[in-house]
Amino acid sequence: MLLEKIENPNDIKKIKKEDYGALAEEIRQFLIEKISVTGGHLGSNLGAVELTMALHLSLNLPEDKVIWDVGHQSYTHKLLTGRKDGFDCLRQFHGMSGFPKRKESKFDAFDTGHSSTSISAGLGLVKARDIRGEKNTIVSVIGDGSLTGGMAYEALNNAANLETNFIIVLNDNNMSISENVGGMSKYLNNIRTTNSYLDLKEGIYNALKGTPGGDNMVSQIRKAKSSVKQLVIPGMFYEDMGITYLGPVDGHNITAMTKVFKAAKRVKGAVIVHVLTQKGKGYGPAERHPARFHGAEPFDIETGIPSHPRTVANYTDIFSTVMCKLGQRDADIVAITAAMPDGTGLKRFRNMYPDRFFDVGIAEEHAVTFAAGLAAGGLKPIVAVYSSFLQRAYDQILHDVCIQNLPVVFAIDRAGLVGSDGETHQGIFDFTYLSGIPNMHICAPKNKWELSDMMKFAVSFGAPIAIRYPRGTAYAGLKDFRAPIELGRAEWIYREWEIALFAVGSMVKTAETVRDILKREGYSVSLINARFVKPIDEESVLEACRDHRLIVTMEENVKSGGFGEKVLDYMNRSGLQNQCINITIPDAYVEHGNVELLKQEIGIDAESIARRILEESR
Amino acid sequence: MLLEKIENPNDIKKIKKEDYGALAEEIRQFLIEKISVTGGHLGSNLGAVELTMALHLSLNLPEDKVIWDVGHQSYTHKLLTGRKDGFDCLRQFHGMSGFPKRKESKFDAFDTGHSSTSISAGLGLVKARDIRGEKNTIVSVIGDGSLTGGMAYEALNNAANLETNFIIVLNDNNMSISENVGGMSKYLNNIRTTNSYLDLKEGIYNALKGTPGGDNMVSQIRKAKSSVKQLVIPGMFYEDMGITYLGPVDGHNITAMTKVFKAAKRVKGAVIVHVLTQKGKGYGPAERHPARFHGAEPFDIETGIPSHPRTVANYTDIFSTVMCKLGQRDADIVAITAAMPDGTGLKRFRNMYPDRFFDVGIAEEHAVTFAAGLAAGGLKPIVAVYSSFLQRAYDQILHDVCIQNLPVVFAIDRAGLVGSDGETHQGIFDFTYLSGIPNMHICAPKNKWELSDMMKFAVSFGAPIAIRYPRGTAYAGLKDFRAPIELGRAEWIYREWEIALFAVGSMVKTAETVRDILKREGYSVSLINARFVKPIDEESVLEACRDHRLIVTMEENVKSGGFGEKVLDYMNRSGLQNQCINITIPDAYVEHGNVELLKQEIGIDAESIARRILEESR
Repeated sequence: MLLEKIENPNDIKKIKKEDYGALAEEIRQFLIEKISVTGGHLGSNLGAVELTMALHLSLNLPEDKVIWDVGHQSYTHKLLTGRKDGFDCLRQFHGMSGFPKRKESKFDAFDTGHSSTSISAGLGLVKARDIRGEKNTIVSVIGDGSLTGGMAYEALNNAANLETNFIIVLNDNNMSISENVGGMSKYLNNIRTTNSYLDLKEGIYNALKGTPGGDNMVSQIRKAKSSVKQLVIPGMFYEDMGITYLGPVDGHNITAMTKVFKAAKRVKGAVIVHVLTQKGKGYGPAERHPARFHGAEPFDIETGIPSHPRTVANYTDIFSTVMCKLGQRDADIVAITAAMPDGTGLKRFRNMYPDRFFDVGIAEEHAVTFAAGLAAGGLKPIVAVYSSFLQRAYDQILHDVCIQNLPVVFAIDRAGLVGSDGETHQGIFDFTYLSGIPNMHICAPKNKWELSDMMKFAVSFGAPIAIRYPRGTAYAGLKDFRAPIELGRAEWIYREWEIALFAVGSMVKTAETVRDILKREGYSVSLINARFVKPIDEESVLEACRDHRLIVTMEENVKSGGFGEKVLDYMNRSGLQNQCINITIPDAYVEHGNVELLKQEIGIDAESIARRILEESR
Repeated sequence: MLLEKIENPNDIKKIKKEDYGALAEEIRQFLIEKISVTGGHLGSNLGAVELTMALHLSLNLPEDKVIWDVGHQSYTHKLLTGRKDGFDCLRQFHGMSGFPKRKESKFDAFDTGHSSTSISAGLGLVKARDIRGEKNTIVSVIGDGSLTGGMAYEALNNAANLETNFIIVLNDNNMSISENVGGMSKYLNNIRTTNSYLDLKEGIYNALKGTPGGDNMVSQIRKAKSSVKQLVIPGMFYEDMGITYLGPVDGHNITAMTKVFKAAKRVKGAVIVHVLTQKGKGYGPAERHPARFHGAEPFDIETGIPSHPRTVANYTDIFSTVMCKLGQRDADIVAITAAMPDGTGLKRFRNMYPDRFFDVGIAEEHAVTFAAGLAAGGLKPIVAVYSSFLQRAYDQILHDVCIQNLPVVFAIDRAGLVGSDGETHQGIFDFTYLSGIPNMHICAPKNKWELSDMMKFAVSFGAPIAIRYPRGTAYAGLKDFRAPIELGRAEWIYREWEIALFAVGSMVKTAETVRDILKREGYSVSLINARFVKPIDEESVLEACRDHRLIVTMEENVKSGGFGEKVLDYMNRSGLQNQCINITIPDAYVEHGNVELLKQEIGIDAESIARRILEESR
């Protein structure tokens, strides 16, 4: 077992060259075995095994720095930097993160999670190095999917001025999570099919030198500013911006890569090394179903089938079904995703109404303004997006959708705690950033039927509106509570006195348990499903304050700008002096781990909430 | 006067061809005269006179739609669509907006203000047109500066798939507000210098046809997917993505442009028309000082000198001076701007420390993550940015700076009401979106000395911190109140009893007047300068609640997630039942106009606030 020799950082440098292939194979088996138990990002990591090995062989870590764009492909890097044992508790509470974390290892140069940040961060490290007079090598590794994100292009544009070395590895597997889209993808495909490699340029120069007049042509080509060089050199797109392009090179050939990295280190400026890899490489099921094995639940290695197949619907499934029905009923309904047709559940809508479905690539900013354009053109766009990724489009919501009061529906999935992806992916800020925006409306369903009802309400609402729902199983309780959705109207589930629980979305289910506990303690407890966070139901708050001593608000969002503060504000404006307890996410990032454990940790599980109410109730 | 014939939309089509030049000249004079009185965007509008005329001549408005990126270059468009009289009240309260507004005219197809949105919005209108089976022409007009914004690239990437017509006019004046930067600028420069024009392609084809073997070469070129075409065709960057490129064409030659727009309308797909214009064209001072005449105050036409030269320093000046001092004191201090070296006051820092100054182009997302990289590399970056533009980088602040708790300083200018630019530019959301972010700290100075003190505090603070200050004259009052800045500590200015005014930043000055009014009415009034919005000074609130009946918070920010709600939250948690009045911006967009008028309109001027306190005080 070669892997036994990989205990400490840089141990890979002791491995013999002829054993590289065997080590790569062992790493692959290790990853498949571990991830099959814990779950995690499989496809991207299997694709990056040799690339990571080649980088570790070519660089002097941790003095040299690698920034992994998105970061879910960093497992081999973790394995090669003394974190092999961490894989048993991968993405588990207090266990190893599935993303690079500076606080986890000094070999992680920069935290990542969202797409397309690595070139910006890398360029920052490069400039800091130069100003401080240091000499290390900085490498940003970015996938072709992440390259559709605008900020990657902003960074390339800025890096073009550079006069010192900065290596950008373009890890091109021709995929985002799902199939890649757009003009850049087409462009890279053209390069892939040229079968040209590292030495192409020199090859052409040499060939020309052998022909009559060739010498002169070579000198002409070398002198030519742009147009002539374009004839012979792939990657001219980048060279035109002033960035050297090397490649494409086989991303599963370690020797070829170490050779090109050596060349790249000599370039005085920004250099793109175009590396071709295969997502899921070496594991049949992942090669065949890249989207399914992007972020995998525990699975059976033999068959690739999930170990615990899902038997109950999650909110994404409900959304998916409702979208298909709405699409049938109204030809003006169109759907937009930023590279997440699978994750958001829009795949079925795409299959049924391909002309009304738009996958714009990893490009949340464009997605939202594009939706605003669709709405201005008379259609009813629904943007399906994860809560933490919509953060990218904050200005577009505020500036392009809401100033013009355009009827765009935001279907915000993975809102609240998301679990194993951790800090970068928790959807715990959307009430805050959306609430501050004029003309915006926000609601959250208590259960699966209410998601459906809110969707129907939203598409005919005629103004900007967001529906936010969590990751995981769709709550199927409280089936009988299905009063029609009215703007800014809460729903009273149980009407008693003494304590009133105002719960938002996913917290309604939690509130049921809280109520049970409080009732066992002898309290009389009302439960109100808030439904709307903007505008809140002031009448219901007034009513609750009249009949209850204590008001408790419950939400899976940070406190600042959330539902609880809106209730406080109304109570203050109305001179209502009831005691009010606000249950929210604390003002701190929440790490990765099982959602139930995380809720206990931060005190928003039913038991903690009930305990707090019993303690603080005056 | 030809301009007399331009009263209603499409009147330009009645003008004789030979009079186009004369009309352009009249429009220029009209714009110069009007803007010299009202102030407004001059340079960009003078550059776009012929371009706008050519578009109006080539299109059938309002069925056809033009989206003006940023929108400050739309004056000629307004003039040609029946809004000539509006120029007397340009950008004034209840007067004509300086930006396209759908609510102002049906000839304004989409509201703009921030950069780089037009291709996304245009693509949305194109898709809506196709789905609804309509046949109009959609044109997005984008500057080369706006093209450095990432979302423009996201949109181009998405538009590449298009199979129906969509015209993107690249209005290339080789400028943002200041000098343009980056790789794309370099690329466009290369094209500019080729002196190739519309008919270049056909010209080359024809030339080749005349030579031996030329026919074959032409057929080869036509067949070639990419590499060969690059030899002869400028704009291959775009063609590589799958977007047709036409140009470059002289943007001051109406006949040439109408010809190319005609050709562009025939393209079945997205087509870029590359138009070369000169910012400030036809007015000497604006040609020579493009940055100064970007957004001009009223000026003397003869000399170009401002009619009311500024005699007192504004906050930007103070920031500028402090930055130069800090830069001298600490070699680790670096400064970043997104295309605003003039507007943010960083120009002097750039001149003194060119190696530690970074203009990254119109690219706020990249700017912030780049700053995070600089901080991770051991430097002390200061990002100088306008409040409303920082909205673009919300996710980068949350995800790249604050998770890693990196010491990036945000110097947020134009915070609060900005006046004549209106809805899109008001900086009234930053407390909200920044407050929700863990690890973020926020402060605001009451006067010019405090800005300086806060800057010094911030650069040695060692964690993410934002300092927000308004547009306009730096307050020079309260000079003697200069207690050292301490994290989360307010400053008591006047200590009495009964009513406590907690004012944030610019509102401290207002609060002084409010206090005077209330004292004249016989009240005893304390005034506290909040200094910090996150964390707030809970001790001072407690103290105030002990000695005062009424607490009043005052801030130039919307209520949700702002300072007032934080005070309410603390009072609620501590069981403090004092009356509390929160003075904030209402939950609505605030239009353009004189800041003092706007403040009266929304009730945050001293008189309105005092009146409200007198009315509501219990």
